[in-house]
Amino acid sequence: MFLSFEGIDGSGKSTQARLLAERLKAEGCVPVLTREPGGSPGAEEIRALVLQGEPDRWSPETELLLFTAARRDHLERTIRPALAAGSIVICDRFADSTRMYQGRQGLRATVDQLHSLMIGTEPDMTLLIDMDPVAALSRAKARATAEERFEDFGLALQQQMRADFLALAREFPDRIRVIDGNRDPAEVASEIHALVTAQLSETTHG
Amino acid sequence: MFLSFEGIDGSGKSTQARLLAERLKAEGCVPVLTREPGGSPGAEEIRALVLQGEPDRWSPETELLLFTAARRDHLERTIRPALAAGSIVICDRFADSTRMYQGRQGLRATVDQLHSLMIGTEPDMTLLIDMDPVAALSRAKARATAEERFEDFGLALQQQMRADFLALAREFPDRIRVIDGNRDPAEVASEIHALVTAQLSETTHG
Repeated sequence: MFLSFEGIDGSGKSTQARLLAERLKAEGCVPVLTREPGGSPGAEEIRALVLQGEPDRWSPETELLLFTAARRDHLERTIRPALAAGSIVICDRFADSTRMYQGRQGLRATVDQLHSLMIGTEPDMTLLIDMDPVAALSRAKARATAEERFEDFGLALQQQMRADFLALAREFPDRIRVIDGNRDPAEVASEIHALVTAQLSETTHG
Repeated sequence: MFLSFEGIDGSGKSTQARLLAERLKAEGCVPVLTREPGGSPGAEEIRALVLQGEPDRWSPETELLLFTAARRDHLERTIRPALAAGSIVICDRFADSTRMYQGRQGLRATVDQLHSLMIGTEPDMTLLIDMDPVAALSRAKARATAEERFEDFGLALQQQMRADFLALAREFPDRIRVIDGNRDPAEVASEIHALVTAQLSETTHG
């Protein structure tokens, strides 16, 4: 089973991905926790190439191609081998993040065509952590790093991104599950674990 | 005007591109001599990422995406600005090299779709230097560098590549001109200069 976590910056994606991996591992599963951009040695090198340097170093189109190259490598070298070995792959961001971030730059149709041509794969289930943008932004700012240009977009943008993510969830209702992230992380983790367990059971027995 | 040079390794592409640039410059034109993969600061970084390391470091599909990202950057940052400024762009390899090299790996249809989606631009004229593979191979081996994995393919492959390039010239008869490279370089240069001058005249007056 291939799971992805999505959401605006500061929504708790990474924390929830890690909590789910820990809980599944404690239950005897073999989760592989990975992330994008990156997730394989080659893809991490491409990530560094994209995220370092000036914000306008790459055009939106070149950036899209580099992220797609990283995703292809990640898929071939990490995700597919782990799935073939029977692991549960838990990915912090996948193609939906590209649909959102590059889509905002007017490239949504191009993103979709490039995805069909070079990636093809979608997660079995995507957990969208929906969160109040004010709280998410203050959380994101508290941990801003050298890669902060992905974080420092301001509240208006976070609000727009939240709306765009919710619209994406309506576009893919069978795959994307919206989780209310405005709660205690343990409570959020329990809801996610229950959803994943139900899906696993369905996949195994259905 | 946008010109590209293509041909098997050791065919004299780079020499002829340089000779043409020098002659056009002496005549008062403003040629911009560039190359692929690379040709802009970002594209040169992507080139280094692709060509360094183990030969199987990237899958053919990931390599194709990285080369396409480099081409997009090269097009946006070097080729289009130079053309807009009235320069003659002379490019040592362009998309035809990808059609050949990645095409040989079974990706020709993918190469074409990706080119339509993300690049679009073709040279106004492509000069294909056709050369006896035995002579070309010995020339290529004499100057083999750290990037020699693109050179060290052996005679059988060079013969196949030559045939594939000639087939490509038949596929694009209006754009690709086949030049006999089995002659003194000065003689080859004169033929190329005459072809380019005629095309320039046609573009300007036609």
